[in-house]
Amino acid sequence: MSDIAHLGPAELLTPKPAESLAFFHDVLGMEVEHEEGRSVYLRGWGDYQPYSLKLTEAPAAGLASLGLRARDPEALERRVEKIEATGLGEGWTDGDRARGRSYRFRDPDGHAFDLYYESERYAPPPELRPSLKNQPQRYVGRGAAVKRLDHVNVLAADVRPNRVFVNETLGYRLYERIELDDGTEAGAWLSASIAAHELIYTKDAYGLTGRLHHLAFWVDTREECLRAADLFLDHGIEIEAAPSKHAIAQGFFLYGIEPGGNRIEVTTGGYFVYDPDQPAVVWTEAERRKGQAWGVKTVESFHTYGTPPA
Amino acid sequence: MSDIAHLGPAELLTPKPAESLAFFHDVLGMEVEHEEGRSVYLRGWGDYQPYSLKLTEAPAAGLASLGLRARDPEALERRVEKIEATGLGEGWTDGDRARGRSYRFRDPDGHAFDLYYESERYAPPPELRPSLKNQPQRYVGRGAAVKRLDHVNVLAADVRPNRVFVNETLGYRLYERIELDDGTEAGAWLSASIAAHELIYTKDAYGLTGRLHHLAFWVDTREECLRAADLFLDHGIEIEAAPSKHAIAQGFFLYGIEPGGNRIEVTTGGYFVYDPDQPAVVWTEAERRKGQAWGVKTVESFHTYGTPPA
Amino acid sequence: MSDIAHLGPAELLTPKPAESLAFFHDVLGMEVEHEEGRSVYLRGWGDYQPYSLKLTEAPAAGLASLGLRARDPEALERRVEKIEATGLGEGWTDGDRARGRSYRFRDPDGHAFDLYYESERYAPPPELRPSLKNQPQRYVGRGAAVKRLDHVNVLAADVRPNRVFVNETLGYRLYERIELDDGTEAGAWLSASIAAHELIYTKDAYGLTGRLHHLAFWVDTREECLRAADLFLDHGIEIEAAPSKHAIAQGFFLYGIEPGGNRIEVTTGGYFVYDPDQPAVVWTEAERRKGQAWGVKTVESFHTYGTPPA
Amino acid sequence: MSDIAHLGPAELLTPKPAESLAFFHDVLGMEVEHEEGRSVYLRGWGDYQPYSLKLTEAPAAGLASLGLRARDPEALERRVEKIEATGLGEGWTDGDRARGRSYRFRDPDGHAFDLYYESERYAPPPELRPSLKNQPQRYVGRGAAVKRLDHVNVLAADVRPNRVFVNETLGYRLYERIELDDGTEAGAWLSASIAAHELIYTKDAYGLTGRLHHLAFWVDTREECLRAADLFLDHGIEIEAAPSKHAIAQGFFLYGIEPGGNRIEVTTGGYFVYDPDQPAVVWTEAERRKGQAWGVKTVESFHTYGTPPA
Repeated sequence: MSDIAHLGPAELLTPKPAESLAFFHDVLGMEVEHEEGRSVYLRGWGDYQPYSLKLTEAPAAGLASLGLRARDPEALERRVEKIEATGLGEGWTDGDRARGRSYRFRDPDGHAFDLYYESERYAPPPELRPSLKNQPQRYVGRGAAVKRLDHVNVLAADVRPNRVFVNETLGYRLYERIELDDGTEAGAWLSASIAAHELIYTKDAYGLTGRLHHLAFWVDTREECLRAADLFLDHGIEIEAAPSKHAIAQGFFLYGIEPGGNRIEVTTGGYFVYDPDQPAVVWTEAERRKGQAWGVKTVESFHTYGTPPA
Repeated sequence: MSDIAHLGPAELLTPKPAESLAFFHDVLGMEVEHEEGRSVYLRGWGDYQPYSLKLTEAPAAGLASLGLRARDPEALERRVEKIEATGLGEGWTDGDRARGRSYRFRDPDGHAFDLYYESERYAPPPELRPSLKNQPQRYVGRGAAVKRLDHVNVLAADVRPNRVFVNETLGYRLYERIELDDGTEAGAWLSASIAAHELIYTKDAYGLTGRLHHLAFWVDTREECLRAADLFLDHGIEIEAAPSKHAIAQGFFLYGIEPGGNRIEVTTGGYFVYDPDQPAVVWTEAERRKGQAWGVKTVESFHTYGTPPA
Repeated sequence: MSDIAHLGPAELLTPKPAESLAFFHDVLGMEVEHEEGRSVYLRGWGDYQPYSLKLTEAPAAGLASLGLRARDPEALERRVEKIEATGLGEGWTDGDRARGRSYRFRDPDGHAFDLYYESERYAPPPELRPSLKNQPQRYVGRGAAVKRLDHVNVLAADVRPNRVFVNETLGYRLYERIELDDGTEAGAWLSASIAAHELIYTKDAYGLTGRLHHLAFWVDTREECLRAADLFLDHGIEIEAAPSKHAIAQGFFLYGIEPGGNRIEVTTGGYFVYDPDQPAVVWTEAERRKGQAWGVKTVESFHTYGTPPA
Repeated sequence: MSDIAHLGPAELLTPKPAESLAFFHDVLGMEVEHEEGRSVYLRGWGDYQPYSLKLTEAPAAGLASLGLRARDPEALERRVEKIEATGLGEGWTDGDRARGRSYRFRDPDGHAFDLYYESERYAPPPELRPSLKNQPQRYVGRGAAVKRLDHVNVLAADVRPNRVFVNETLGYRLYERIELDDGTEAGAWLSASIAAHELIYTKDAYGLTGRLHHLAFWVDTREECLRAADLFLDHGIEIEAAPSKHAIAQGFFLYGIEPGGNRIEVTTGGYFVYDPDQPAVVWTEAERRKGQAWGVKTVESFHTYGTPPA
């Protein structure tokens, strides 16, 4: 385990709080753990923390900030020191619900991050107690029944400095990336664990900064992705990309747009990186032109749309 | 298509109506189409008729009667004539909700059947209208989200006369059966279509008559059976037999006991019988001793328990 | 069961016999049951007849003829009489390997059919004997391991007369069809059983006659379709349409082009039609413009390509 | 990532080398990477190293030794130093095919381990080159087509000292364990990554030492476990435990006995441990009495059989 144990919670902004909440609760099947002010705290049945998503009303959609949990107090100090050395640190805050003091910083592109160590573990109320004691919460099975927040893909005007920052300053490993013929980096897939990606940077088609491409929630099987597509269809959720298999990282995906405008992925699969020395896989422009693993050509909006909208 | 188009609706009795209803609605994910008197009419999202299950409060669990739809008015008359010739007919009734006049009869073991032709098609209310017009109802996805009633397994003191009756008088085809070393028939799997079974008779271990072994509801994938097992577990539903594959008919199964005491199966898979001359497969006692397809030995209760309880 | 029990075997033509055979044997995982002259007879592990595909070397790809098995001798006579009345009959032949005398006719578009009743059942050699006696053959599991021939989609210059012929003369039921704004029929989905389609006619974009759109082979699960896509990818088979769900008939699909040029589908899922009076679902041009069930837009070639190539 | 990157390769002994090889090649679908002397080196299509299994002819079945790869040269030195401090070290060797110098030691129960850092990456021959460059090898799809070696379960006369050794000396984390009412430890599940288990110790029912419970090979989906059961059945491989879901670690399993006598698992699923502070889940005797996740009672042999046989 690297100094960063995992990402999350994520704070997501929505201009349509009621409709967005209905999506995350009814369609994705998350539980409301808490409501406070203009925010609702939501969780998947497999999240070990009280919540992985903080949904907050705002004039425009987008990602307000992304939490990162350090593996221990020393790892937290070590990383804060490195961040401060880059000049991207903004300082300590009192944290948020269920987590302690946090260090706020921004990546080179301007996305806000909150790095913390102290965190509560989820204690389910009686009606959500699981039958199996190695599971944080009862499996309710509502909607797509996503298990937990899995990964986050942000957009960046310039991918390279961001992936270098996440790699060198935060200690993530770079597993895959795209390099266009002119040398521009179009995307970078990084991870703090053996999972094939946790944090992804892809190029912002408009050259804007601080935008979100998508939040991805995990389900355990491809069948659940297919089932989620049926749910999206019959709940009137826009399916941007029907279920298929990515070439990069080989994850299985379903992409939809939640009513507030943010792109949401239901994901599973992929591979584990057990090789401690694995060289980053570099994809060329020609290779990417082949589309996804089975030849599906991604719709144009997938390469341009982000939140807040351009 | 034979003279019988399909079985259903089934009227199921329960001494615990509220708990049974919660099971069928919350855990199996059926919709309440109607409530009247001591009955609730329920449907799967793929049932083309308004309901496939009529759940009725009664002192003891069991199957009150099983509907059978004839393919056309002539087929109805043809079969009624054959039934009357056996002396097992009881006469015409006005039918029930959403179906016309029905002919009530009993199989040799005493189970009640209602044969009818006239039937309404389901017309969903606005909130249940599907996105795809070839689907009777929106896919809500609650609980196990069973698609439709699939098959019924009843117990009989003596299997043979019943399977002969269903085969010869009703026109079902016999696809598989078990014959013990002493010549006793332990079970018979019959169908009015290419599906490997629709109506099953197995031997009543107590020599009682008119009892139910189980009602089976269809899901499209084995993954949904596995998921249903997680739902049973976390909703406190007794799992009698965990998901596995039957040797006979090769169906994939999950068996649980609903709160009223009736055994319910969530099923999928199996094979289609396209051969118009297919000889019935006969299993010996020794072959059945091997257990299910992958060697799972069925629990003892599976061979003895039925409703009403002995 | 209607007078027609099922379709098959199909005789498929290929200008690249060795490469096509490698596809059906290695990638689809069929067994070679027999070789004779310029033909190889192949079977899926679930086919009850000795073979469901006769692969024959020829100058151009395409469908040579499609077998149809009548349910009994009377059904055969009955249908031959009806066919002869249409003037489309060509007369009796001695049949082919493992089937008896056959009546050769053509649909209005000119596709050849062979209607027969007498048929052998498959008797596996020792190395292919199954463990479960209700299974025709051992599950070898090579490649996509398709279970059996499922359905056939032919092209027609004018869909209507063909679907009327199949419906009225052969006795298939019409379950779904497409009617364009100008009244042209773009497709018709027909079946002789509860399966949502067995024989499909779609419009030939070039107005040609007698062409094949695709042969479809069944697998029991969607996961096997996804797995087949990985196999196509790594065996260099062109994937024309990656796995997804059809709107019409709701089947799950994977389309590829075998080396000889014929389009082959690996399919599963869909729904059963238990309603004996089910009205045909009619799709409009606007509805079809939405793409497949989850919004996938079919590639242009899917609407134009057939064999022999135009 | 801890100091140990992952386990493997494993050297497995078999008294029936030809039959065992047929099992691993034909049924599990592994590739033969190399043969030398009395050993065959095999790999799954997702193994990044040249081989993960070395199958060696020997008078009796069992595990000869288990490789462990250190994450870097410093981690290797650090761990060797710790091992030597326990007195369990045996010294350096020249390594084996495709890996460099290795440090041989034994756990308290006597199982042999080889700790190394230097390792080759797999370079596929032309016929095994994959279409996707982030995949080590082409997906051939033969048999169960296992992806890679996943975890190893060894037996120990006394579980506690071994799990303490692996935890403290090797740096694995302890995620779950069983403690019987008398305080005896019946099992311990440890991991060097977020995967819920990599190395498992369970109690040897005969109090013997150095024995193997099972090697587990990964597949990506539960459907592949179900499919593997069909393959085991039709290839005459003894299924000891049909596919179902473990309570501990929640992995999906299929257990069979390879012809040489070693127990082999085909596995998938489970959960990831992202919490850096996760306390070990401790199961009581009463909790374990409930069977696996869905109530399946494990067969007696599962608790007693190991290799070499007692």
